[in-house]
Amino acid sequence: MTEIPDLDPYVERWNRRHLLDLERLSEDELVTLLDVAQILKDATEGCRRKVPLLSGRTCANLFFENSTRTRNSFSLAAKRLGADTVEFGSSGSSIAKGETFTDTAKTIEAMGVDWVVTRHQTPGTPHLLSRELDCCVLNAGDGPHEHPTQGLLDLLTIRQHRGSFAGLTVALVGDIAHSRTARSNIWGLKKLGAHVIICGPPTLVSQRWQEIGFEVAHRLDEILPRCDVLNLLRIQFERQNARPFPSVREYAALYAMNASRMKRAKDDILIMAPGPINRGVEITPEVADGPHSVILEQVTNGIAVRMAALYLLAAADEKRAHTGLEYQSVV
Amino acid sequence: MTEIPDLDPYVERWNRRHLLDLERLSEDELVTLLDVAQILKDATEGCRRKVPLLSGRTCANLFFENSTRTRNSFSLAAKRLGADTVEFGSSGSSIAKGETFTDTAKTIEAMGVDWVVTRHQTPGTPHLLSRELDCCVLNAGDGPHEHPTQGLLDLLTIRQHRGSFAGLTVALVGDIAHSRTARSNIWGLKKLGAHVIICGPPTLVSQRWQEIGFEVAHRLDEILPRCDVLNLLRIQFERQNARPFPSVREYAALYAMNASRMKRAKDDILIMAPGPINRGVEITPEVADGPHSVILEQVTNGIAVRMAALYLLAAADEKRAHTGLEYQSVV
Amino acid sequence: MTEIPDLDPYVERWNRRHLLDLERLSEDELVTLLDVAQILKDATEGCRRKVPLLSGRTCANLFFENSTRTRNSFSLAAKRLGADTVEFGSSGSSIAKGETFTDTAKTIEAMGVDWVVTRHQTPGTPHLLSRELDCCVLNAGDGPHEHPTQGLLDLLTIRQHRGSFAGLTVALVGDIAHSRTARSNIWGLKKLGAHVIICGPPTLVSQRWQEIGFEVAHRLDEILPRCDVLNLLRIQFERQNARPFPSVREYAALYAMNASRMKRAKDDILIMAPGPINRGVEITPEVADGPHSVILEQVTNGIAVRMAALYLLAAADEKRAHTGLEYQSVV
Repeated sequence: MTEIPDLDPYVERWNRRHLLDLERLSEDELVTLLDVAQILKDATEGCRRKVPLLSGRTCANLFFENSTRTRNSFSLAAKRLGADTVEFGSSGSSIAKGETFTDTAKTIEAMGVDWVVTRHQTPGTPHLLSRELDCCVLNAGDGPHEHPTQGLLDLLTIRQHRGSFAGLTVALVGDIAHSRTARSNIWGLKKLGAHVIICGPPTLVSQRWQEIGFEVAHRLDEILPRCDVLNLLRIQFERQNARPFPSVREYAALYAMNASRMKRAKDDILIMAPGPINRGVEITPEVADGPHSVILEQVTNGIAVRMAALYLLAAADEKRAHTGLEYQSVV
Repeated sequence: MTEIPDLDPYVERWNRRHLLDLERLSEDELVTLLDVAQILKDATEGCRRKVPLLSGRTCANLFFENSTRTRNSFSLAAKRLGADTVEFGSSGSSIAKGETFTDTAKTIEAMGVDWVVTRHQTPGTPHLLSRELDCCVLNAGDGPHEHPTQGLLDLLTIRQHRGSFAGLTVALVGDIAHSRTARSNIWGLKKLGAHVIICGPPTLVSQRWQEIGFEVAHRLDEILPRCDVLNLLRIQFERQNARPFPSVREYAALYAMNASRMKRAKDDILIMAPGPINRGVEITPEVADGPHSVILEQVTNGIAVRMAALYLLAAADEKRAHTGLEYQSVV
Repeated sequence: MTEIPDLDPYVERWNRRHLLDLERLSEDELVTLLDVAQILKDATEGCRRKVPLLSGRTCANLFFENSTRTRNSFSLAAKRLGADTVEFGSSGSSIAKGETFTDTAKTIEAMGVDWVVTRHQTPGTPHLLSRELDCCVLNAGDGPHEHPTQGLLDLLTIRQHRGSFAGLTVALVGDIAHSRTARSNIWGLKKLGAHVIICGPPTLVSQRWQEIGFEVAHRLDEILPRCDVLNLLRIQFERQNARPFPSVREYAALYAMNASRMKRAKDDILIMAPGPINRGVEITPEVADGPHSVILEQVTNGIAVRMAALYLLAAADEKRAHTGLEYQSVV
């Protein structure tokens, strides 16, 4: 078994029961999450990946959209902390028999569950649940709103390569309108001091971003030379209207990161993508598999940030049970 | 890890390999199950829920009807005892390739399985399996016949609130004809000394119950003032004929537990429901969420009684292996 | 917890990172696998089946064909070694969103996975994966090509009953053309010194087997008196053309192992079948359930050989990490 690092100082600084979005986290909270993620990642290097800090606890996945990757990443994170996992979904479940969403969640909680990890097509669903449940709620994606652990894993990956965020220019490229990944990145990066550029077709980037102070660009080539990090979002054509603009071909011409664009990028540019990637659409194979790509590191960091989130929420809960302190309001 | 309570005295009194129904259990066996369930529930309070008494054992779920809740409740019960779990089902399984049900079960047993938890639409299926397998068989619902762990969790919930069953009047309300929950409750409550009222529309309550000595009622309002406990069954319209009687509206008018009926109920009435509940059909929100409702406690107790059943069956099996004593015939 | 046997001498003799097929294993490697399987089987007899040699490791199932049995057998094998498991599949996965197979596998690996167990309809898929991934790859069936752990469990079952393979005549009977089980058995048995007869309808047995030196027969009755072991393959009518030859009736008449044929078999003949069996097609109930049948022992041995494979691959990997030795090329 791996030696268990001392995480008490971090728990001292953590005061939330739920992880719902990055928009409302403070810089200090973000740093605490990243610090704990890094410690847990280091402690589980190699092939002995268990730090059974939370043995006897139970993590429930309650996913109302298909997901194998995020669901399994949370499950593995829970298991590596020694917790048990249990899977609930919409098909074949009691919701099909007319039960309300809240009743389903409360029933799951009543089985003795410490965390409910939830994904739902409706923005705000995890926030709703957090007001109904006594256990910890983690947002694994609420429609186009946020996907906070995806944001955190992106932040951790950047920090591992650059040390800090001050002075960094990070562009989120692509379908901003439908991307919860974009939203979580935007808020997290801003809090940590990076300069954020929101880049995509006018149909897929709201003008609102500009109005509230972010740099918006519609051509990748204009901003490329200034970027330290590119986060290439998957274009979700299935979410667009019947006659999409842009087409795949148009999109690739304007936004695909390819060998030719790499020549005009900074020497140490980081290429990120939340995956699954569409080779030939937002990224070409020579870039996806090239030396600047950190796409697989992002996946590895996904386990670490989820372990950190599960750990901090549960440990704060236990601390509170002993001290009687109140949680900070979360909504 | 939680301190492991001494359960040997209970194992001494337990002499069955399978849990197939409550109809054939003795009062002493029911009490043993409830006692062990209470001990295991107390031992797993809080967030450290493991009592790894049965580490190294394996529990197989073999479900031929959709179920998330009962299946997960059994899985969590097994995991909290330290056992491993494995899931089998009908879709995509070898039964689709022409294998017989018994061959499927024997194959699962041959993987080194200690318990097979099974749900099947055909009454008597677990009894059949128990004659074919050497491992322990637990009935998780056989058609409209029985659902013994649901009966046990209802009994445990009542006992927690009332201490004993003597002098209690318990009404099972609703679709008795299609309800395995009703049947398991009826036999369990009768064995433990409660007065049982079977209440529902004439189309959904067999006259046979009256003939064998139970009180039968067709109007909730007639019996309501006498009841200490109401167990409000889900009306399973999908199991009825094309033109159902009663309709949802008729059913709610006659049987729904609502605020107005609560006023005519005993001050300390317990409101139970096996879930998933249909708000507005058999129960209104103010009752479901009111102070008399123990619906979520039932869910919590479901884990405890399933832990108790898994534990007693396995421990008796081990005891038998050492002593060479014979099992009591179970069918 | 079971006492953990000393497996170091076996690890010393094992020098592969992947288990892709039996065709390329040496006799010594096959014997090592069977020896370790036997040790692990003995160590997990009874109801305490854990030998947590590989706690903290993670096994990913990546199955692109339906499978409950093999998938669960691998999962149980991993869990009994103390490892965690995680399930990936094709439906609802990122492949449906346009991700390549290799990207999916690399993403899974990046979650911190030690073994990828894979089944795919395309022969050679696990071999392809083994060149792309750094973790261990185990073939759980690649189209009609090989199913090495099925071959190993058949070998272990024979060895348990006969001690060695020298002088044994083993017939594989049925649909050789579509059977990966047949192929893995053929290569494994040949390496270990058995005489192999390939028996089936001309439409389902390639002449190629005869050309490369195997005995081929088209009538079971001709070879039956000479056989020490019969391995009765499932006839996969769904894989044949519109108008199959033979029909079920024709097949049963020529190849079904029944009571009448048992009279003409050796007194100590072993009857094997990979399952799921079709009673009345390739085997009749009195033979399947008779004293010569070892069909359920095969299932039990499936867990043991999978534990052995997982263990040897992981232990060799760890050994290599310490010594810096190179793996033997596997393709």
